[in-house]
Amino acid sequence: MNVVVLVGGVGGARFLQGVKHALGPGHEITAIVNTGDDVWLHGLRICPDLDTCMYTLGGGIDTDRGWGRTGETWTVKDELAAYNAGSEWFGLGDKDIATHLVRSRMLRAGYPLSQVTEALCARWRPGVRLLPMSDDRVETHVVIDDPDTGERAAVHFQEWWIRHRAAVPAHSIVPVGADEATPAPGVLDAIAAADVILLAPSNPVVSVGTILAVPGVRTALVKAGAKVVGISPIVNDKPVRGMADACLTAIGVETTAEAVGRHYGARSGADGILDGWLVHTGDTAAVPEVTVRAVPLLMSDVDATAAMVRAAFDLAGVSGG
Amino acid sequence: MNVVVLVGGVGGARFLQGVKHALGPGHEITAIVNTGDDVWLHGLRICPDLDTCMYTLGGGIDTDRGWGRTGETWTVKDELAAYNAGSEWFGLGDKDIATHLVRSRMLRAGYPLSQVTEALCARWRPGVRLLPMSDDRVETHVVIDDPDTGERAAVHFQEWWIRHRAAVPAHSIVPVGADEATPAPGVLDAIAAADVILLAPSNPVVSVGTILAVPGVRTALVKAGAKVVGISPIVNDKPVRGMADACLTAIGVETTAEAVGRHYGARSGADGILDGWLVHTGDTAAVPEVTVRAVPLLMSDVDATAAMVRAAFDLAGVSGG
Repeated sequence: MNVVVLVGGVGGARFLQGVKHALGPGHEITAIVNTGDDVWLHGLRICPDLDTCMYTLGGGIDTDRGWGRTGETWTVKDELAAYNAGSEWFGLGDKDIATHLVRSRMLRAGYPLSQVTEALCARWRPGVRLLPMSDDRVETHVVIDDPDTGERAAVHFQEWWIRHRAAVPAHSIVPVGADEATPAPGVLDAIAAADVILLAPSNPVVSVGTILAVPGVRTALVKAGAKVVGISPIVNDKPVRGMADACLTAIGVETTAEAVGRHYGARSGADGILDGWLVHTGDTAAVPEVTVRAVPLLMSDVDATAAMVRAAFDLAGVSGG
Repeated sequence: MNVVVLVGGVGGARFLQGVKHALGPGHEITAIVNTGDDVWLHGLRICPDLDTCMYTLGGGIDTDRGWGRTGETWTVKDELAAYNAGSEWFGLGDKDIATHLVRSRMLRAGYPLSQVTEALCARWRPGVRLLPMSDDRVETHVVIDDPDTGERAAVHFQEWWIRHRAAVPAHSIVPVGADEATPAPGVLDAIAAADVILLAPSNPVVSVGTILAVPGVRTALVKAGAKVVGISPIVNDKPVRGMADACLTAIGVETTAEAVGRHYGARSGADGILDGWLVHTGDTAAVPEVTVRAVPLLMSDVDATAAMVRAAFDLAGVSGG
């Protein structure tokens, strides 16, 4: 079976573990990964979502934090601070830096991000084909009133998310460069060839939303032969993880499973992409022309996550594993 | 007093410590530092001699090794090896990498190496003005018979020096780019304004020799009002440190204090630069038109090194400290 999953970082990576676990060997899983969080820091190209997926699936993730490498050390970060090199709010670990060095060098040598990712995955063997949504530079920027200056300013998503912990209200969230971006090689083909397409319970605005902002992706989903099933990242009117509520508020969407489902919309409708929408047990969601089903959606362990995935397969009318 | 010293790496850095110690405060010491060993590795610009001087004078050096940072760790290097990223023979420490990240980022942003070095020294406060010999890219290459392929090949100096430990005979040693290089801002002015100019007991071929290969430096030394005194890096027909003999052999110069003194030559002669030549107690050297004096030349501690420096001042007819 060919399974395509649109994913962001921590939640997306854990969801992919569940997909692998639910399917077992002999199936092709392709993750289309958000790259709008990517950032140049200290001359290094950092791709948080791709790396979180790669490390999680490859057994290198710090499972407590959910991001970065297990047994990480922070020597370089401390030394950069001693140089007053800036961006000290970003958690740049020593092990992680090796990944960024290999990536940055390849990018500067002219390799597209998709090929760089493939090269990095030769080490990690994630068991899932990790495709960046695009080889083009797309970076999510957030318009805020800068707490230091009081001036309205557009900052990189990472600065808002990590430095300000999304506590400074976002006036708008813009995937800069998305308009001119094209999907990375393999993205549209994977969607066209899929037996089922899942939207991971990732941030609907800055993860899945950014992937959908790449011209061609939304149309490919609409035209796909496979069913598209989304998994709600909102449980009991709260994000399961992270600060998705701050992002939803910025785009005028309520933090409820129903509002997010309606935001994605029905594939049969205008601009919608969903055939099915999985919400958490006890949550209700009326999404016109979308089949909604409620199952436990907490990814407490890989078995629970695999059960979510099986429920999504079931909703799509396919049987995995 | 204005003191100018032409230096390479470990030996040069220790010699500069002796100059500082001999002079005490209230004097201006300018080191013109070889950059021919500089190399791009993993997308990082590494300047071994500048960093060795900076760390040594700034109190950050690993005193046992003589290079790199004290308390260094090697996490990034191990991770790069796990990616098969190459150049595994180079000792790239985690603390050191922060320096290279700051430098590489500034270079890519358009700052010349001299300004980058000044910025890095704002942290280290070496007490000596460290000037790269040139802001232009000059890289010493060594022509060898490649031990793997048997083919004649030009490799970067670092590869010959570290990977092959200079054990593969060098057919020639070429400072690539030197012909088109110009001295960094401050270099010629410092030489012109000097009260005394010293050649540290650094490698006469790939350290001092490379500095002299930058057009304008040799002429500035010849025209300088100050005396030029060299300190022999050869003691008892052996290099005090490192593998200078392999370099001298490559350019057809014997590994003796006399041969190196003659190689530098008398300032009064054609192309020569020396007024004085310090050799080690017990060594003899007849260098036409150069005043030769024998004193202990082992830099066993900073007091011994300062005594060497005072002997050089004495030979130049200046009194420091």
